[in-house]
Amino acid sequence: MEVVSLNKCFGGTQGVYKHHSTVCQCDMTFGLFLPPGEKKKPFPVLWFLSGLTCTHENAMTKAGAQQKAAELGMAIVFPDTSPRGKDVPDDDDNYLGQGAGFYVDATQKPWNKNFKMWSYIAHELQEEVISNFPVDQNSQGITGHSMGGHGALTLALTMPETYRSVSAFSPIANPTNSDWGQKQFAAYFGTNSKLPEQHDATLLLDRNGYPGEILIDLGSDDQFMDLLRPDAFVSVMENTGQKGTFNMREGYDHGYFFVTTFINDHIEHHFRSLQK
Amino acid sequence: MEVVSLNKCFGGTQGVYKHHSTVCQCDMTFGLFLPPGEKKKPFPVLWFLSGLTCTHENAMTKAGAQQKAAELGMAIVFPDTSPRGKDVPDDDDNYLGQGAGFYVDATQKPWNKNFKMWSYIAHELQEEVISNFPVDQNSQGITGHSMGGHGALTLALTMPETYRSVSAFSPIANPTNSDWGQKQFAAYFGTNSKLPEQHDATLLLDRNGYPGEILIDLGSDDQFMDLLRPDAFVSVMENTGQKGTFNMREGYDHGYFFVTTFINDHIEHHFRSLQK
Repeated sequence: MEVVSLNKCFGGTQGVYKHHSTVCQCDMTFGLFLPPGEKKKPFPVLWFLSGLTCTHENAMTKAGAQQKAAELGMAIVFPDTSPRGKDVPDDDDNYLGQGAGFYVDATQKPWNKNFKMWSYIAHELQEEVISNFPVDQNSQGITGHSMGGHGALTLALTMPETYRSVSAFSPIANPTNSDWGQKQFAAYFGTNSKLPEQHDATLLLDRNGYPGEILIDLGSDDQFMDLLRPDAFVSVMENTGQKGTFNMREGYDHGYFFVTTFINDHIEHHFRSLQK
Repeated sequence: MEVVSLNKCFGGTQGVYKHHSTVCQCDMTFGLFLPPGEKKKPFPVLWFLSGLTCTHENAMTKAGAQQKAAELGMAIVFPDTSPRGKDVPDDDDNYLGQGAGFYVDATQKPWNKNFKMWSYIAHELQEEVISNFPVDQNSQGITGHSMGGHGALTLALTMPETYRSVSAFSPIANPTNSDWGQKQFAAYFGTNSKLPEQHDATLLLDRNGYPGEILIDLGSDDQFMDLLRPDAFVSVMENTGQKGTFNMREGYDHGYFFVTTFINDHIEHHFRSLQK
């Protein structure tokens, strides 16, 4: 693993690291914030999954997450959103490929060689982070923004024993019923696959529920509301009696000025949930 | 004036605006944050001047200034660092031209047509902001980072009646004795000019002093320490008995992870100073 950069921030260290990913068959970059402290015991850790077009860098520099994480003593991982490189397929025009991994393991060519973001996040980077940094593998939460909110919800709803707390900002909540999802699932899984059902937060919540409280924030002026389908997710929360909070934030939109406004609430949610 | 974008942030509004600059002879873009509130009286306002290579956007998205500004009820202006456009001269290789306005009015060709950043900040944008937004022209502070710290200090030391509070992050503090300054001053003013002395914070402090307290933060691991020359400025502070605080922050470097760590201290400094 290569250290790309280390910057002191709120008394802790914001690092950027590069490593070779076996599952994605390319080099991958991620950010990791470690809070200040004597590391007498490993830190609880929050995974922040980013949205379409983002790299590891967007949330790391714009979300303003480090201040509260430093105060509470939490680590944060900022993974990239897809495999990268000149040999990795791409289709910018259709929100497919680089920057659009959708947190799934693709089965269809040309994507199936590199696009294994589910396995990368849930297993490979998980092991890399746990084995190299002072973070507590029994105290992990996951959040994300937009496509990353979709990733956070689907990973937590599938692996609640790993991701013991979950939240999301403006998540793609019902991708089997949205242009942000159907198109990507068709490309990555083919048109006759059952796999999309395993990567739809609304369907997963209906089937599995989640043992903890789910926190979701969404701006009432989100310009992508029709693509996110929060209504479907909220209906299932209500119908199944799922514990949690869905905040519609008046006047906020889809961007990072919205995320940074409520990031502290989310970090506190994870910190509280992981202490239980 | 054209509204480029408006985003709700911490209950206030982060706007980006474009207007034609008469002094710079090009369109200029700036950010302005307005805190929440009923605007019964105009808000105190802080100017944040950015560093080499930056636009209006860097501090606006990375400094994390909006939270504290919203809490205290302060507006913040994020100007660009130079004129821009295909007809505006540039010399990236030498840190001259676009992104490197140095907050001076150039007298030498080819720069003297557009590069009037002193007049732009101190007069033209000043009037634009005061006349279009609910900000109090009698309650203005100024801060900045690196080249912007130089701009903030030199503007405040020259016009203390306008800029009633001042601070800086990692400022270029003695540019007549540094490669970051001598080269630009030679290009913008010519080699036999007395103008550089009017744009050197250390010389201005020695000559004028400042009626308020000056706050400066600098990282002990700043990779550009030799170019910033903080030692010269601190010497004059000590020799002249200038009120203020110079914090050397152990282990921090020159970047925005440093700025965001201490931005709240600076905003509080300005808020307190402007209440006096």
